[in-house]
Amino acid sequence: MAIITERFSLSTNGGSEVVDITGEVTKILGRHKLKEGSLLVFVVGSTASVTTTEFEPGLRRDIPEVLSKLIPEQFRYHHDDTWGDGNGHSHVRASLMGPSLTIPFSRGELLLGTWQQIILVDHDNRPRDRTIIVQLSGE
Amino acid sequence: MAIITERFSLSTNGGSEVVDITGEVTKILGRHKLKEGSLLVFVVGSTASVTTTEFEPGLRRDIPEVLSKLIPEQFRYHHDDTWGDGNGHSHVRASLMGPSLTIPFSRGELLLGTWQQIILVDHDNRPRDRTIIVQLSGE
Amino acid sequence: MAIITERFSLSTNGGSEVVDITGEVTKILGRHKLKEGSLLVFVVGSTASVTTTEFEPGLRRDIPEVLSKLIPEQFRYHHDDTWGDGNGHSHVRASLMGPSLTIPFSRGELLLGTWQQIILVDHDNRPRDRTIIVQLSGE
Repeated sequence: MAIITERFSLSTNGGSEVVDITGEVTKILGRHKLKEGSLLVFVVGSTASVTTTEFEPGLRRDIPEVLSKLIPEQFRYHHDDTWGDGNGHSHVRASLMGPSLTIPFSRGELLLGTWQQIILVDHDNRPRDRTIIVQLSGE
Repeated sequence: MAIITERFSLSTNGGSEVVDITGEVTKILGRHKLKEGSLLVFVVGSTASVTTTEFEPGLRRDIPEVLSKLIPEQFRYHHDDTWGDGNGHSHVRASLMGPSLTIPFSRGELLLGTWQQIILVDHDNRPRDRTIIVQLSGE
Repeated sequence: MAIITERFSLSTNGGSEVVDITGEVTKILGRHKLKEGSLLVFVVGSTASVTTTEFEPGLRRDIPEVLSKLIPEQFRYHHDDTWGDGNGHSHVRASLMGPSLTIPFSRGELLLGTWQQIILVDHDNRPRDRTIIVQLSGE
């Protein structure tokens, strides 16, 4: 049984932008010899989320559009009284969707569906550099 | 320390139908000798979710009804420009709720509340056959 | 590789109150000698959630306020036909946000951001005593 903690960084545009990180995550799994276990994906920070979707151009637009209707940028957030940085909506969206995801793997392969990609959703109201932790537990 | 990956299948009706899978999951835990650890439940595919609820007839109706108000089927989803399959809402609901859940167990028992069941919520717009991965890690 | 299951209790006011539990969770990690692994936080019960946020006075108000708009207390929930306890909204919010969170740690430290705290959100419509499970897996 081994535990391997790796990380990678990427730049995003914010605005609940949807970024496909399946390739980076799969590469990390492929570099190690683990066959059976699980992979934890965790985004550091409180204005971004990790989940899965079918990564295609339509849903890349639908996810931010639906989030803008549910938790709009133009709303009176008390968070602005604290910092005045105008990203109260980013925080609430991130808390709702969550910062982490655990995916099982077996025979060295992630058990995702064919049209199921791992995505980072960056809710902040400006471009950000993000750190993603990928932790493998298995044998 | 052992890792055991199992799976089971079930048929659903879609429409954010709520299905209690606690029995199947508990049966898998009971078949193995693990006493202490965690159990990962993961649904393969990008239009379904796993979470917990009190499984009773009222909430089985409330969950799809609230989701229909928040993320309605009748909305202009760009996903339809890609596939024309009318299930843009299913994808967005699934990404928001997430495909996986991890539950601790101790002395061979899942540490769920008495009125806390593990549920699959199938958001697709048609009946589906679903595969659920159950992965035990423990000793 | 070790698995350690601990728990702690706390009292809440309900109403999607946001409670910072980072201190309690960090204390449990600090009591053990584990350096590399992950920590599962799970709330027992079906009307509360665990996630992360920047814990500050503004967001403590924003999170319940946004939830009250999205999934209002005053709505006709079928759950009331079963129990008549008026907390249908609490259950739906909890299912949507989820009861658990997994956080990686490395060199004995949780890999959270500086402004990223672990929170319990108690959605029930009355004060509650809550049990939080904290399970460490690592070496």
